[in-house]
Parts: sequence; C-alpha cells; structure tokens
Amino acid sequence: MMDLSTLQVAALDDSAMAAARARLDQLTKPPGSLGRLEALAVKLAGITGRARPRMARKAVIVLVGDHGVAAEGVSAYPSAVTPQMVRNFLTGGAAINVLARRAGARVMVADLGVAAELPSHSALIQRKIGLGTRNMAVGPAMDRAEAMEAIAAGADIFQSAFDDGVDLVATGEMGIGNTTAASAIVAAITGRPVQDVTGRGTGLDEEGWRRKVAVIQRALEVNRPDPSDPIDVLSKVGGFEIAGLVGVVGQAALRRVPVVIDGFISGAAALIATELLPRSRDYLIAAHNSVEIGHRVLLERMELTPLLNLDLRLGEGTGAAIAMHLVDDAVAILDEMATFADAGVSGPIEDDHTF
Amino acid sequence: MMDLSTLQVAALDDSAMAAARARLDQLTKPPGSLGRLEALAVKLAGITGRARPRMARKAVIVLVGDHGVAAEGVSAYPSAVTPQMVRNFLTGGAAINVLARRAGARVMVADLGVAAELPSHSALIQRKIGLGTRNMAVGPAMDRAEAMEAIAAGADIFQSAFDDGVDLVATGEMGIGNTTAASAIVAAITGRPVQDVTGRGTGLDEEGWRRKVAVIQRALEVNRPDPSDPIDVLSKVGGFEIAGLVGVVGQAALRRVPVVIDGFISGAAALIATELLPRSRDYLIAAHNSVEIGHRVLLERMELTPLLNLDLRLGEGTGAAIAMHLVDDAVAILDEMATFADAGVSGPIEDDHTF
Repeated sequence: MMDLSTLQVAALDDSAMAAARARLDQLTKPPGSLGRLEALAVKLAGITGRARPRMARKAVIVLVGDHGVAAEGVSAYPSAVTPQMVRNFLTGGAAINVLARRAGARVMVADLGVAAELPSHSALIQRKIGLGTRNMAVGPAMDRAEAMEAIAAGADIFQSAFDDGVDLVATGEMGIGNTTAASAIVAAITGRPVQDVTGRGTGLDEEGWRRKVAVIQRALEVNRPDPSDPIDVLSKVGGFEIAGLVGVVGQAALRRVPVVIDGFISGAAALIATELLPRSRDYLIAAHNSVEIGHRVLLERMELTPLLNLDLRLGEGTGAAIAMHLVDDAVAILDEMATFADAGVSGPIEDDHTF
Repeated sequence: MMDLSTLQVAALDDSAMAAARARLDQLTKPPGSLGRLEALAVKLAGITGRARPRMARKAVIVLVGDHGVAAEGVSAYPSAVTPQMVRNFLTGGAAINVLARRAGARVMVADLGVAAELPSHSALIQRKIGLGTRNMAVGPAMDRAEAMEAIAAGADIFQSAFDDGVDLVATGEMGIGNTTAASAIVAAITGRPVQDVTGRGTGLDEEGWRRKVAVIQRALEVNRPDPSDPIDVLSKVGGFEIAGLVGVVGQAALRRVPVVIDGFISGAAALIATELLPRSRDYLIAAHNSVEIGHRVLLERMELTPLLNLDLRLGEGTGAAIAMHLVDDAVAILDEMATFADAGVSGPIEDDHTF
C-alpha cells in the first residue's frame, strides 16, 4: 500500500515564474492587461519549471463508478445509465468526447467500480474495485483498503498518461449518485451543514432534494467520518471514481503536471487530495463554478478561483475541457506575442523612450 | 448617406431555436446541464436561422483611430503608440493576432482615423476619415457627417467579410484615449455619473483618473450630447473606430451574423448600435466583463451577460477571440453529440423507459 505521508510535492519554481512574469511585462500590451490569463501563464511556468511552458499533449481522465447510495433514491437517473454512458464515452458520443476533441485532448475512460460487468473494449481501462460502493446510508461506502486501491489505480492511470508525455490533464467522472458522495465529503471535511453543500444533481425536484439531504445526514451519523483523516472521509462517504481522482491529482502534482479540475465531484476529489498533500493545491486549475452549491464551498476551502462561470452541472470533465482553451491561450500569449523591443512600440509616457 | 431609420433587423428565428432546443434535450446529458453553452447554441440557431449552425469562418475586425482628447493627458500612453500598434497588428505580434490564430479567426485591421499617415500595407484596410478626432473637451470630436462616414466604413468592412463567407465576427479596436470616449458615451446615453463609468484605461494612477473624469465632465458640458439621438452622442464624444464598430454591429445584425462583442470600447459601440437598431441586441454575444467599471453598466443596459470574467483590460478584440472557443464548443455540442436514441442511454427514472 502507498504511504502517502512520505510523498513530497515540489514547491512551484520561483525562477521560472519570475522569468515568465518578466517576459509578460515586455510584451506589446499594458502590463497586466490580460488579467487572469497572465496569472495562469505564470502558474503554468511555476508548475512545469519552464519559463515558456508547452501544453501540447492533453488528456481528460474520466473515471466511472457506481454508488450503493443510489438505492436511496438520491438521483433522477437509474444506475443502469452508468454502463450505458461508459459505452457512449467509448464510442465518442458524449459531451466530454465532443469537448475534448475540440480542446485537442485525448479521453481516457476507466471503470473503477461500475455496478455491472462491462463488455471488454480496447479503449476501456479496467481497474474495477467492486460492483459499486456499498450504501453509505447504512455503513461505510468502502473500506480503507478499497479506497487506497482506488487511489492507486487513479495514480497508475495518470502515470500511464505521463509516460505517454502528457503536459496537461483534466479530471472527469461519471457515476449515478456521485453528487451525493461529493456533498457528504464536503460536509465532512468542512463541517458545513449538509443543506449548504447539497444541490439537485442531475435534476432532483424539491422532495428529491430533501430526501438527498436526509440521506447524507444519515450517512454522516452512521459513519462518523473523521475530518482530520481524509482517507477515513473518502472511504466512508466517497466513491471509487472519486478516490481514483484523488490518485490522479496527487500523482500529477508529484510529476509537476497541471491538473484542470472540472466540477463538483472532481472538486471533492481535489479537496481530499489537498488535505492529504497540501502542496498539490498549487498544481490545480479550477475550470468553472458549477451550479452545485457545494462547489463554491470546496473551491473557497482550496482558495481556488474558477476560470469560467457557465452554469454547468454535467461533470464528465466537460468544464475542464472547455477551460483547456484558456490554458492554451495563456501559453500562446507567453510564447508568441512580440515584445516592445521586437515591435518597436513605445512604453507608457513616464518611461519617455521607445523600448 | 445611410438612412438608419429604414433598416430592418430581422427577429430571431423561433423555429430554428425550437429545433435546436429540442435536439439539445435529446442529447446524452441531463436536460440543460450544459447551462449557458446550451443557451448560446440556441441563440446561434435563432440568429442564423439554422437548427445546427456552422461557425467555420471567423474574423476579428480591429478598427483603429486616434483621439484629440489624448492631448488632455487622459492616457498612460502617447498617441505615437497607435501607428506602432497598427504595424504590430499587421506583422502578427499583438495579443489579438495570437488569440485570433488560436480561435481560427482572421484579423482584419482598418485605419479609421490614426493621427499619422500610415505606410501602405497590403493587409491594411484604409478608410481614414481624419487624422484623429478633435478634442472633445473643447468641442465635438466629429461632425455628424464624419460619424456617419465612419459607420458606413465599418458596415463596408463587415460586408466584405460577409462576402467572403464569414459566419462569426468579433469586434476589436485600438486607439490611445478611447476609454475616455467610451466612458463619455456611456455617461451620455445612460445618464450615470461620469465617475461611475470611468476606469483607469491602460494604467492611470489616481491623479490621472481624476483628470480623466474632469475631462469627460467638461466634454459633456461643452457638447451637451442628446441621449435620445445616438448619432449626436457618437459624433460629439465618440471616435472614428467606435463609429466604425457601430457600422460593423449594425451590418452584421442586418446580415444575421452573430457578433462577439469584446470589452468596454466595443461595448460602447454596441450600445450606440442597439440604441439605433434595438433588435441588433439579439445578435450580440458579450465576451467578457472588463476591469473597466463602465463595462458592466453598458452590458446591463443591453441586458447582456458576459461569458468570461478574466479581468481583461486590453481591448483589440482579445476577450472576444477567447470567447470564440466557447461559441465553437456550443456549436459542436449541438452538432456532434449522440442522442439518447443513438447511444441507447436511459432517461430519467420517471420516464421509465430507454429512449
């Protein structure tokens, strides 16, 4: 088993960041006028240790798992949708396929715990830990060993992308019932009331939402997850695909690869990862602000500001794939713009000379 | 001279919008879960009259002009930067060149009124109306005929892009002093106090900002622009490039081509266009929310919500070029995703069947 306490995530590279910042200030635009795109470029320099980072190879890692708690009626969709959507991911018809294609990213689909035996497929990464988690409303969703196995699987999947030269990775997930798990994680870690971190998922009505809140409260009472022990929280009220994404985030940070975090469920996984490895936070790019109300809470906890606010609530990595365009834009600004000297453009009036 | 009162902008195509909405609801995702991307797809259908619009050919129209009011010390940069930046646009080194390339958009650069004779260049569109506007702090920036000529020039430039088959156009501009003109326009049209719609442009300090506010107040007192006559406002406190963009927006709406509006100056031009031709508003996509405080005011007036919030304050069309990725994403979702029926994916539980 991995011993997470011995892992060391490197600090961001200050000299690469300073070099990127210096270059941005020499480009033909008022200093800082490209706002958050400039901050993003500097962060990418710090993550990669390169003053002019490249983000040529991209992957969206979509981990899939089912949730025993779906039996409590917490989702608008039946668990039967999970294997159907895996097939859709593999045949390229899902939203993430379309958006990843647009972003120039490969989609890697892995079964971490779908509650059905899936037909084998050359593109499906098979790392099934169980046929769905157990129902967290009556006991722990996973035992500690299962959670660690799922983390290791996610780390392995990231590592295989890294071995293929990936420069930028995005998190994605699918699993009926997984907003329930994500809300339970956020409530357990932050101590916030369940109703403040629970949304309507894929489309619950008011009564469904009340049932979902009650189920999460019951899960927290039955399992008493220890907020100072993120693996305890993850195993008791998380899910296989969420644990897998913890491994993706942690391993990417260890390898100094930036991770674009998608929505609420990906965010809950990132929250666990940053509780385990606080420095991994520096490697994260928050893609968007989901409709799910718990998303804002976990982003604030990680002190991350999302790039986009498009009222998305789909998951799969869709928001992260969209945000990849902004990452590419930031890199291109740093790499391709002319400097004042190159272009013979004057600086501000107080400088009183042409650079 | 154009008679704007006779121009008819078509209403959005309801049946194309209904068809787009119906298709979005059949795609393999919970209805509405792609949020504003779905709304954008529907709007593009309404604009183009096609249930599955194509946005293959794109252009960013960058209009350039100088401002007599720059003599009042309202900008951190000298007017000498304007021709230097035109050269930079033409040689591909500016931020808009980089971001338009990334978006797959052609950059069209036009001189509407740079205060210098520019060397001829095969890619420079020459529609100079004057060597910069006159100083609005002492009298009207343009006379009415000049403003109309600039509008007609912008309309012609859009029309030439349209004749080349453009599907999507973005507005861009450059001109030292033009945030001063934009603030004056917004104050005149909305009646808001000057300090509420005036920012720091490319980088004024506190004293510079106070001077800028005082100059705009003086310009409004001297010229008394009539808010019920948008051409009066435009000619007295606008600029050649801003008037040109009014023509771009108006002509694009007449031709049913969506226009991505960049930042504050582009927004001020769009505001004039929508005062002249109210229905043109339906053809606008607000790209981002600028750092310039007047931008929010004019977007609210037009009831447009920007797609991005990246703290940009550069102009040139940069925010609009970034937003073009989102337009392409919206179109791709509508066009490329599988339906529930295609993919054999179940709908919500209450539907109780596989589509």
